[in-house]
Amino acid sequence: MSRFWSALVNQLTPYVPGEQPKTDNLIKLNTNENPYAPSPVAIKAMQGAANAKLRLYPDPESADLKACIADYYELKPQQVFIGNGSDEVLAHCFQALLKHEQPLLFPDITYSFYSVYSRLYQIEYQQIALADDFSICLDDYKLPNGGVIFANPNAPTGKLLALESIENFLQHNTQSVVVVDEAYIDFGGQSAVTLVDRYPNLVVIQTLSKSRSLAGLRVGFAIAQADLIDALERVKNSFNSYPMDRFSTTGAIAAINDHEYFGAQCDKIINSREWLTAQLAGIGFSIIPSKTNFLFVSHKTLPAGHIATTLRDKNIIVRHFNQPRIDNYLRITIGTQQECESLVAALNEIVI
Amino acid sequence: MSRFWSALVNQLTPYVPGEQPKTDNLIKLNTNENPYAPSPVAIKAMQGAANAKLRLYPDPESADLKACIADYYELKPQQVFIGNGSDEVLAHCFQALLKHEQPLLFPDITYSFYSVYSRLYQIEYQQIALADDFSICLDDYKLPNGGVIFANPNAPTGKLLALESIENFLQHNTQSVVVVDEAYIDFGGQSAVTLVDRYPNLVVIQTLSKSRSLAGLRVGFAIAQADLIDALERVKNSFNSYPMDRFSTTGAIAAINDHEYFGAQCDKIINSREWLTAQLAGIGFSIIPSKTNFLFVSHKTLPAGHIATTLRDKNIIVRHFNQPRIDNYLRITIGTQQECESLVAALNEIVI
Repeated sequence: MSRFWSALVNQLTPYVPGEQPKTDNLIKLNTNENPYAPSPVAIKAMQGAANAKLRLYPDPESADLKACIADYYELKPQQVFIGNGSDEVLAHCFQALLKHEQPLLFPDITYSFYSVYSRLYQIEYQQIALADDFSICLDDYKLPNGGVIFANPNAPTGKLLALESIENFLQHNTQSVVVVDEAYIDFGGQSAVTLVDRYPNLVVIQTLSKSRSLAGLRVGFAIAQADLIDALERVKNSFNSYPMDRFSTTGAIAAINDHEYFGAQCDKIINSREWLTAQLAGIGFSIIPSKTNFLFVSHKTLPAGHIATTLRDKNIIVRHFNQPRIDNYLRITIGTQQECESLVAALNEIVI
Repeated sequence: MSRFWSALVNQLTPYVPGEQPKTDNLIKLNTNENPYAPSPVAIKAMQGAANAKLRLYPDPESADLKACIADYYELKPQQVFIGNGSDEVLAHCFQALLKHEQPLLFPDITYSFYSVYSRLYQIEYQQIALADDFSICLDDYKLPNGGVIFANPNAPTGKLLALESIENFLQHNTQSVVVVDEAYIDFGGQSAVTLVDRYPNLVVIQTLSKSRSLAGLRVGFAIAQADLIDALERVKNSFNSYPMDRFSTTGAIAAINDHEYFGAQCDKIINSREWLTAQLAGIGFSIIPSKTNFLFVSHKTLPAGHIATTLRDKNIIVRHFNQPRIDNYLRITIGTQQECESLVAALNEIVI
């Protein structure tokens, strides 16, 4: 704290990301990264982007990447907004579209950055409790609101909400923006992108950090009707004209266009997820059915914190959230099949 | 405009960056990019960073780059803040350190993003007129204020303020933050970084976009005492935990460490600047003495807008700002020596 800080700074509660350990000899299942390398085509494209043109500013509009995403989803480029990771896209959404007189609504258990953004932009918010089985019940969001945001599948629970439920809610909630944060949608969910043309208040956000294996590149995007995208552009162009460097647009385009590699890696992760779910169930864990690249689990006898600490001693990192309702759960990223097997072997030693 | 926009969005006046033409057959002297390629060592390092590790999040703290910059300036890493281009660093400064009850002060002619940020964060501001010779007179800033920001050398004028004047002002202005935006300092100025240890309210901002030829990579940084840096970190970690991708930190470190290449390219630009200054003076231009990689010039008879349009027809782009006091000036980036010679040849045809 300092007399030079603006009043706002004292009110912030910054987000705490998962640990990024400096050593390589760990099985890292704590930040939901993809265990497989990005598309080799994308890697080659980025190698090629390391050239003399880096002396020039990038295209401030990221027009090529917008066209690529629009093409992928059969939309218009004016329906696409690009940001420096989906965290930046989310931040601009909070400032441009979710700050109104009525409170913003989001689940009590969800991506913990939502409350952080709300404090940054001084947005009043109300957290709606998940059901006991950790479902999001959109009927509970039929309240006066200045906006609604939820992750689908939700994090850290991994639970998917059916597209039909989202559409039902959109038919009811027509006066405020509804943001669906689809960071994990490619691991078995059905995207709400198909609803965008019919609902003028819907924003869908996705990232290349998970299913495209590009967490280290920082690319996220929003899909919505053009006037909502325009609001995001106005905020972006009042904040940073050139958020995307020359590598991020080049790598993102190549990764999105490599359909075959993308499908194969997602399938591998889904297969390992189903295998791991069965294995963990066999040694006393209860598992929330997951449509993501992670499992949210608790053990019938051993406390989650104890398991996390013991796994860490065995060079395996998982994530434990020390917060109400979920402090006896672990969030475990789906690694390679070999990493999943090592995890099961380690857990077998712990739970005996 | 849309009923879904937050009230703020309607109040914004987004920044308009200089044109980034899609074709390569232009002499591009409009956005103050460096005409020379980045360090070959940096290019090689970035080629190497296009690898499987892109699947992992980057270090959210950019600790290696902080250490590199701290080492370069003989400071502590806690005195360094890293951002996605100096525009992002500036934005966080406005929100974290320049929003107070008294108005923020900055020159009437300066980087036009300052008023854009002020509107984004709803900061009251007062613009202080430059002297008739386009000097910043810091005595005119001895007013009640919530912060002071200016570029040194100033843009688009190119004019340098002596370090002694800045220190004199800091001795007087002790109750609010003073930000010195040093985007162009490496082309002949003396950095205020050397004052940071003695003035707890000083923030110095630099970029790798100009003197390091890395506009396409998006890396900027702030230097200040640790408690001011802490305010920037708190805002950054409430906005985007991972603003720097794996290429930007790798490339920045390699570029900063290549002292020899850096010095040689800066010298080349300075030599071309002095040559171009003499040539333009010889054909009727008056030139503000520049310590940057651009010249700010006006012609004794021909209007600036006419010259800009005519140059464009000859495939040379320069920047003309259609705003009070400077609408008869052109801002011309220093290109390669060959580009400078082509410019002079073209101007010779125009001014006859």
